[in-house]
Amino acid sequence: MTAPAALTGLSAFPLTPIRDGSLDEAAFDGLIDRLVTAGVDSIAPLGSTGVGPYLSVGTRAFVARAAVERAQGIPVIVGIGALNQRDVLANAAAAEEAGAAALLLAPVSYHPLTADEVVELFRAVTSATDLPVIVYDNPGTTHFTFTTDLYGRLSELDGVAAIKIPGLPLSAGEWTQRVADIREATAEGTAIGVSVDAYGADGLLAGCDGWFSAIGGTLPEPMLAITRAAQSGDAYLARELSAELQPLWDLFAAHGGSLRVGAAIAEHLGLVTGDSLPAPLRGLDAEAKRAVAEVIDALGLR
Amino acid sequence: MTAPAALTGLSAFPLTPIRDGSLDEAAFDGLIDRLVTAGVDSIAPLGSTGVGPYLSVGTRAFVARAAVERAQGIPVIVGIGALNQRDVLANAAAAEEAGAAALLLAPVSYHPLTADEVVELFRAVTSATDLPVIVYDNPGTTHFTFTTDLYGRLSELDGVAAIKIPGLPLSAGEWTQRVADIREATAEGTAIGVSVDAYGADGLLAGCDGWFSAIGGTLPEPMLAITRAAQSGDAYLARELSAELQPLWDLFAAHGGSLRVGAAIAEHLGLVTGDSLPAPLRGLDAEAKRAVAEVIDALGLR
Repeated sequence: MTAPAALTGLSAFPLTPIRDGSLDEAAFDGLIDRLVTAGVDSIAPLGSTGVGPYLSVGTRAFVARAAVERAQGIPVIVGIGALNQRDVLANAAAAEEAGAAALLLAPVSYHPLTADEVVELFRAVTSATDLPVIVYDNPGTTHFTFTTDLYGRLSELDGVAAIKIPGLPLSAGEWTQRVADIREATAEGTAIGVSVDAYGADGLLAGCDGWFSAIGGTLPEPMLAITRAAQSGDAYLARELSAELQPLWDLFAAHGGSLRVGAAIAEHLGLVTGDSLPAPLRGLDAEAKRAVAEVIDALGLR
Repeated sequence: MTAPAALTGLSAFPLTPIRDGSLDEAAFDGLIDRLVTAGVDSIAPLGSTGVGPYLSVGTRAFVARAAVERAQGIPVIVGIGALNQRDVLANAAAAEEAGAAALLLAPVSYHPLTADEVVELFRAVTSATDLPVIVYDNPGTTHFTFTTDLYGRLSELDGVAAIKIPGLPLSAGEWTQRVADIREATAEGTAIGVSVDAYGADGLLAGCDGWFSAIGGTLPEPMLAITRAAQSGDAYLARELSAELQPLWDLFAAHGGSLRVGAAIAEHLGLVTGDSLPAPLRGLDAEAKRAVAEVIDALGLR
């Protein structure tokens, strides 16, 4: 078994723009259209970047439908993570009905979860849907620590198709070893996707099947260029293109990740209006927004 | 200004028992009756122990009403924390309408929150309600780190009446200094409550106004005995009574906190039926439940 097409290449994570407390449908549609035009390999709404856990089951169902309707056949991977398993299952059912190609599940926590609880959560979801399910390892938001062994246990569940692993500051050799270790631990055919955008090139070059890119949802073209370079085996070019974006990676590091910086980029490019995050999350302050705009302009990104 | 009566003494945090995916109303009523009979100083449903963040706005409104209706005049402090500020405000409005005496707000996070975001969240809530609001510092669940300075900033908001601080393994002298530092940093009249049950006696003896006790929601009598000893100035007795419960504190430490152990105690005492936590949270396994039952029986708790 090889990885489903929906789980390879560049998966782009659009924001879910909020305006005056409600979904800004026009802005969301515009973000999807932009990803379609760029030609990303899959579109992944309602993940961490898409602030899925902050939204109601009803809003999430609406967003999933809107994404599939505008994706023009590009596979849509829908984030279904929520604190309560009942909501997770409702999100899965709605995504499946909307025509999603796959589901992305982060073990969202308030009370820290045990490994057994996470396994049973994935068992409940894979038992309830026919769609491939992607294990979303995002310790910075879920505060759950996966082990490689747990990747293995989860990959044995019928329906778990991929693992989205966090990016790490490793050498090329260490990356290759890390991916090899996960391949060894997981069921044959389990896809591996890398996240944390600064490590997208490293992950793809080390043999990851896909890159789950937060900023690819707002800036698809440069992330596609890195992806295509890596896929064609041009390691030098992939690394060069990623290194050119170092000022962007530095902004992510300075602001606790890509979410608020990505929202500021979308605002600067006119893709969203004002702060687009759900309260209590707030956009960057005016000074930080100016710094983001300067970096984007200096890099010639649009 | 002195601390409101609702914010002093023993505040007991009942479980919100879930059975077959829904609220077990009869069990919840029984837990409230038990707290009324014991004579706790306040009752705090829908906090972390009451799994508030896992429940819908509608269920939370129902639970808040049920608690106030059965509390026989004992002040009810309602937990209103949720990921989305809109839900937090809806929970606050419902709690106020139900007759709550105060609101307890933890800055629940998925994307890590900044200090400014937390201040604006509390500003939004205090602006929307006439009830006193308690700042709930629970880093193990919210993954937000308060500083003493931030306590001070929040205490300046009109409506913030108390800070619920985490318990820490400090010496008596360090505890006294910690409480003095917080008194110094916060607005006059801001109450301080200690949480983490193993440190309840230490916190009260160091001058905290109240003890927000998770296990006090299931085992009110021994926690009241500690509270009354501390309030009467009998430090030796308060520490002795707390030390007698060391096997219980050890169980909490072994199982990542009081939630799953508390649920197992409630099951052992016939207060709830089977696992009473919302999925994906699960009760302890059979062997751990037996160990809990043995400790409870050996300590003569009921």
